[in-house]
Amino acid sequence: MRPSLLRVLDGEVISPPPVWLMRQAGRYLPEYQAVRADAGSFLDLCYCPEKAAEVTLQPVRRFDMDCAILFSDILVIPDALGQPVRFEAGQGPLLEPMSLDRVGALKRDNVLDHLAPVFETVRQVREELARGKALIGFCGAPWTVATYMIAGKGTPDQRPARVAALADPQGFQALIDVLVEASADYLVAQIEAGVDAVQIFDSWAGVLDDDLFARWAMAPVRALVAKVRGRCPQARIILFAKGCGARLATYAATSGADGFGIDWTMPLSLARKQTDKALQGNLDPLRLILGGEALARGVDAILADMAGHPHVFNLGHGIQPDTPPDHVAQLMRRVRDSGSR
Amino acid sequence: MRPSLLRVLDGEVISPPPVWLMRQAGRYLPEYQAVRADAGSFLDLCYCPEKAAEVTLQPVRRFDMDCAILFSDILVIPDALGQPVRFEAGQGPLLEPMSLDRVGALKRDNVLDHLAPVFETVRQVREELARGKALIGFCGAPWTVATYMIAGKGTPDQRPARVAALADPQGFQALIDVLVEASADYLVAQIEAGVDAVQIFDSWAGVLDDDLFARWAMAPVRALVAKVRGRCPQARIILFAKGCGARLATYAATSGADGFGIDWTMPLSLARKQTDKALQGNLDPLRLILGGEALARGVDAILADMAGHPHVFNLGHGIQPDTPPDHVAQLMRRVRDSGSR
Repeated sequence: MRPSLLRVLDGEVISPPPVWLMRQAGRYLPEYQAVRADAGSFLDLCYCPEKAAEVTLQPVRRFDMDCAILFSDILVIPDALGQPVRFEAGQGPLLEPMSLDRVGALKRDNVLDHLAPVFETVRQVREELARGKALIGFCGAPWTVATYMIAGKGTPDQRPARVAALADPQGFQALIDVLVEASADYLVAQIEAGVDAVQIFDSWAGVLDDDLFARWAMAPVRALVAKVRGRCPQARIILFAKGCGARLATYAATSGADGFGIDWTMPLSLARKQTDKALQGNLDPLRLILGGEALARGVDAILADMAGHPHVFNLGHGIQPDTPPDHVAQLMRRVRDSGSR
Repeated sequence: MRPSLLRVLDGEVISPPPVWLMRQAGRYLPEYQAVRADAGSFLDLCYCPEKAAEVTLQPVRRFDMDCAILFSDILVIPDALGQPVRFEAGQGPLLEPMSLDRVGALKRDNVLDHLAPVFETVRQVREELARGKALIGFCGAPWTVATYMIAGKGTPDQRPARVAALADPQGFQALIDVLVEASADYLVAQIEAGVDAVQIFDSWAGVLDDDLFARWAMAPVRALVAKVRGRCPQARIILFAKGCGARLATYAATSGADGFGIDWTMPLSLARKQTDKALQGNLDPLRLILGGEALARGVDAILADMAGHPHVFNLGHGIQPDTPPDHVAQLMRRVRDSGSR
């Protein structure tokens, strides 16, 4: 049976909608913590197929999620290109900041070899995952990955990359071109290894003005989607451009993606007026931390807003580490029971 | 002659549009630094009418801005309510975080006395400022001020206040009620002292989901605007709800404000389709740091997008401290010359 996620991405309305949660495999789960404790660094875990497959499957087993999402990180791409990434406890990712004159030194030929363990993870997950459930692969959008490569970390508004893009458009284009190519190869290899759909995370597209958004967020995503579709015509692609809900009509019409993740600050009642395509989201992760009435009210509002529109239930941002797993179970019951209310 | 800002807020289209810049009085100006060096703490400067009036007028003198904006800070309200605020060099504001059970202990009767120096600043500025130029007063929106009172500082997404609002709506309402009342008194006193218009800064409205936005951002702003208008029927009010462009149609129709500030991430071409009212913005402050072609291109795009719509030229966020003053002069020339291009 075709997984419900793919049917929704084809345009079908399913009630109750399929559910998965961004960062559903992660620190809030004790069984994840147990694997993580023995796994070395965070990237060691991403590159260990047995362990990465195990943590990918954990939330599906515990909560009967409709989809698994590959356990990995958007910054494996710079890591594969020869800009090493590390994760310190309690901080975000750290890289040696790269200036644009170093783009030529990136190791473009090494990407798929470096990421071979990820594709092995996909194969192992796909073997264990029920056929009716979708496995989602992913990558970061070129703009978002570039912001980390240039700043070396997350910053409040990714100013270093914005300045670089404004000050040296040619140099920035060279970096974006490398990222489009590497990301396309990476997504195609994930699809060939067995993922059913892919999501492109443009977590930092929302800090750009109109001109920069068109040039550095949307044009590269459009190129990436076109390259993936050129090699995998059946690919199902979700784009999550955080903080860009006001522009949804534009990029839904031009990006080439099949579905669109919406962050929790954009009303779905407004989003659905902008496109007939599938929408995914958008519960505030804080409601999942609080549980109870705050959670129930948030879930119900989303289901009401999206009735009759192709919809994948999700958070509007990743699960926070201090989320009680019981609240995720409460969310699943609330969504699943909605079909019979 | 009625200042151009007020004519635009009345709905008139003026070309070239009036210009002012958020944080135009501030650290990027050497003449500000000179006053600041002798002024004690940042709040000492806000509460010294002679010095505050001087720095308010500096950018108008240097750049011939169409408006002056009162030099102050949105957090004088908690300071006046008995929750002291301090500013450490290189950090944002710091307060002792307040729990919701302490709302009853706020000193509600002391606000206007505590803020008397601000009204004296207004009188002094209005005396020196040319009649054709508008003096803008301001306050923070109740939600935004509450986020600082609860967290004690700025955080990436003001999670502490969002959690408090979800977990204890009654306690949070009590805090919001105090802030609506104090802010209304504060704006009315500014207007009575001589400001021509006021701006309400809802800098953190953009982190809220649909339900919380309606309840904690828009309802208090609507109450605040109604209170101010009830006592000053001619008041001209601008609302700057950062990160909320997608919802502009809703709050333009219901907030009661006359004009709306738009941040740099929301295309003005989309904003103007949502309301006939005056719009203010929205140049990316980074373009002002870079100057040259990046600045010229940004200015021209905004002027083109807003042709024929009531428009106040501004940044989409405050001036950054490392902005070269010469670039502000370049901006002024570019906007003013647009009338003759």
